[in-house]
Amino acid sequence: MSQTIILYPLSNFTFTTKEAQPEEDPSVAARLQRLQNNYEDYGMRRTVEGVLVVHDHGHPHILMLQIANAFFKLPGDYVKPGEDEVEGLKKRLDVRLEPTSPPYSESTDNWEIGDCLAQWWRPNFETFMYPFIPAHVTKPKECKKMFLVQLPEKKVMAVPKNMKLLAVPLFELYDNSARYGPQLSAIPHLLSRYNFVMQ
Amino acid sequence: MSQTIILYPLSNFTFTTKEAQPEEDPSVAARLQRLQNNYEDYGMRRTVEGVLVVHDHGHPHILMLQIANAFFKLPGDYVKPGEDEVEGLKKRLDVRLEPTSPPYSESTDNWEIGDCLAQWWRPNFETFMYPFIPAHVTKPKECKKMFLVQLPEKKVMAVPKNMKLLAVPLFELYDNSARYGPQLSAIPHLLSRYNFVMQ
Ligand SMILES: [Zn+2]
Ligand SMILES: [Zn+2]
Ligand SMILES: [Zn+2]
Ligand SMILES: [Zn+2]
Repeated sequence: MSQTIILYPLSNFTFTTKEAQPEEDPSVAARLQRLQNNYEDYGMRRTVEGVLVVHDHGHPHILMLQIANAFFKLPGDYVKPGEDEVEGLKKRLDVRLEPTSPPYSESTDNWEIGDCLAQWWRPNFETFMYPFIPAHVTKPKECKKMFLVQLPEKKVMAVPKNMKLLAVPLFELYDNSARYGPQLSAIPHLLSRYNFVMQ
Repeated sequence: MSQTIILYPLSNFTFTTKEAQPEEDPSVAARLQRLQNNYEDYGMRRTVEGVLVVHDHGHPHILMLQIANAFFKLPGDYVKPGEDEVEGLKKRLDVRLEPTSPPYSESTDNWEIGDCLAQWWRPNFETFMYPFIPAHVTKPKECKKMFLVQLPEKKVMAVPKNMKLLAVPLFELYDNSARYGPQLSAIPHLLSRYNFVMQ
């Protein structure tokens, strides 16, 4: 009844760098304003993020981007109106983490997207999101889905120069929304139904 | 990529009462002592609990037992060594909630057990549990699995006289471990990947 996920060691993955990818919006207020503008044109924003899991010495870790030595986020972004979410996530992971120079970027299908782990709903043009549609909200402004990404045994990833890629252990995330926020600190709950096999 | 769950209204369910079911252990200390005694004889305890979801006026609610007007718990209990977890959960749900007098108790397969939603691990003979096996714990003392229980359109449930059955909305549980504890307050996260269809 419980699913098994194979985790490979962090040391199997090679991290290089690539050109910086500046934030699209200069501030949270600007991001919310653009959300509102896009909502008027296209309706609810759909965002997709990947939960990439590895292990270090037998302890599961989540790969996260840290921007400007400050906030943490999962790789991913919003998809276009009508764009398929899984294909969209693969493209966003390519943009964020796939090496741009040969010999690394030969494959065109670099990411294996697994289960949807969570959905987060933004009821208003405000920062807070909930893991359910709040009562009497009929038109949420954004839905963010987190997907498990099954990593291959080995892989080269290229990290934009303005970001760091960190492997954060589950026990560091757990019960730590003060540091990681409500979404990232819930990842240990979302993964708890899986049995990990550490290779 | 997201699964759909059909929820029926709380008003479809009828709640009767049955004989009290006193707690097996008079105190938390006694419960932990019994856990330790059983561990020495049988190894890790396996506990199974059911997450029963209904809706009230379109809002998802979880059915929970409240004991002595104090703490809340999901229906379920530990299973015997070697006992199948899903069959064991069906039996524990029968014991806790199935009516004992006719005409209600005719069926022998009253519960449809769905996905495993979470696993909680107890590393020591102490009260705290984690949604992962903590580092360097090789012999956890208990593993509790929470399963989604798919309720039929209508059902009669009988609640032991020393307990109350409450329907608690997701928004009440969310971010409320002060009142419901870390396990119950995580249920909104665990269910967020499902899309609910309210009948
Ligand atoms: Zn190492
Ligand atoms: Zn209402
Ligand atoms: Zn009502
Ligand atoms: Zn270690």
